[in-house]
Amino acid sequence: MDFPSSLVQKAVEEIAQLPGIGRRSAMRLVLHLLRQPKDFSERLSGAIATLRAQIRYCTTCHNISDTEQCSICANPLRDKRIICVVEDVRDVMAVEATGQFRGVYHVLGGKIAPMEGIGPNDLTIDALLNRVEEQDVHEIIFALGSTMEGDTTNYYIFKKLEKYSLTFSAISRGIGVGDELEYADELTLGRSISQRIPFETSMNND
Amino acid sequence: MDFPSSLVQKAVEEIAQLPGIGRRSAMRLVLHLLRQPKDFSERLSGAIATLRAQIRYCTTCHNISDTEQCSICANPLRDKRIICVVEDVRDVMAVEATGQFRGVYHVLGGKIAPMEGIGPNDLTIDALLNRVEEQDVHEIIFALGSTMEGDTTNYYIFKKLEKYSLTFSAISRGIGVGDELEYADELTLGRSISQRIPFETSMNND
Repeated sequence: MDFPSSLVQKAVEEIAQLPGIGRRSAMRLVLHLLRQPKDFSERLSGAIATLRAQIRYCTTCHNISDTEQCSICANPLRDKRIICVVEDVRDVMAVEATGQFRGVYHVLGGKIAPMEGIGPNDLTIDALLNRVEEQDVHEIIFALGSTMEGDTTNYYIFKKLEKYSLTFSAISRGIGVGDELEYADELTLGRSISQRIPFETSMNND
Repeated sequence: MDFPSSLVQKAVEEIAQLPGIGRRSAMRLVLHLLRQPKDFSERLSGAIATLRAQIRYCTTCHNISDTEQCSICANPLRDKRIICVVEDVRDVMAVEATGQFRGVYHVLGGKIAPMEGIGPNDLTIDALLNRVEEQDVHEIIFALGSTMEGDTTNYYIFKKLEKYSLTFSAISRGIGVGDELEYADELTLGRSISQRIPFETSMNND
């Protein structure tokens, strides 16, 4: 592309570095910004600059937070003995939205993925081991995505924590509530049969 | 969504106002920004802020420009008597990329679209009339998209300029070079027959 302005070129090049946005989409966004009032661009650029400069992470669970301890860890009503291990803040938001979990979280910041050069030391696994070592933890719930990387990460953490007397659990996999069996993939349907639960438990709708 | 941080919430809300980006994608972009080094966010926010604050438009053709006159209007080799009327800077870039046009442009900044509240006064049509009035213009080439809005805009401009002795032309529509007839839509194929050109002209590949 041959740009009519170096300002446009620079903006397109920066925006196109974001994941899922190519140069054509970036150009479309630039033209949109130019058509909007000036304060729209000011608010957008301000929000991006402030985000990265001022972001903080909870010193306990490593979730994104505005304070030294996040609102979940700081909440005296949450059960600190149950730790749900997740990949990132989106998973925390998803579980919180269910309103079903009264424990606390540990945000790993990713999954072990040797192919992408992400090893255990790139994640907050040591911090999790310290929490178990120093605090009164009863249960670890693994809630990573069920990919090879997720399973590897779960297993790595499990091996590190095996020596403590903890309950280890994982979120259940199966047919989505309200979904038809005929449309489910075989792996999921297979799991929901092999990991079937007592009928009385299944009737416990909350 | 219940955000763990007001910084994240603000960034997601601003980014989600961009066209084609929902709140989920915005959240994904925010997490990406947080994983990148600080200077990436600084460069991105800087480019957006500078873009909107310092952008200039060519006083002649209204294309985006870093200078008072854009590089095309300022080029003595371009034929100022032939004006190609386009919607926005992307069209200028597309025509320039062909290397087939030696004239100059006029960037309207949009199309007449009463349904969206865009009338002739929201575009740079008056500036085009002034150019024709004051300069030695021989030909106007209409190169707007062939939508109802494009046709309306072309016709409006044509009626305003009719009284001058100008040649009016429009970019040709038809089957794309290298495309098969059987896959063309009926409207396009119909136009390429009704607006057929002399055989000798069609052999003039450049």
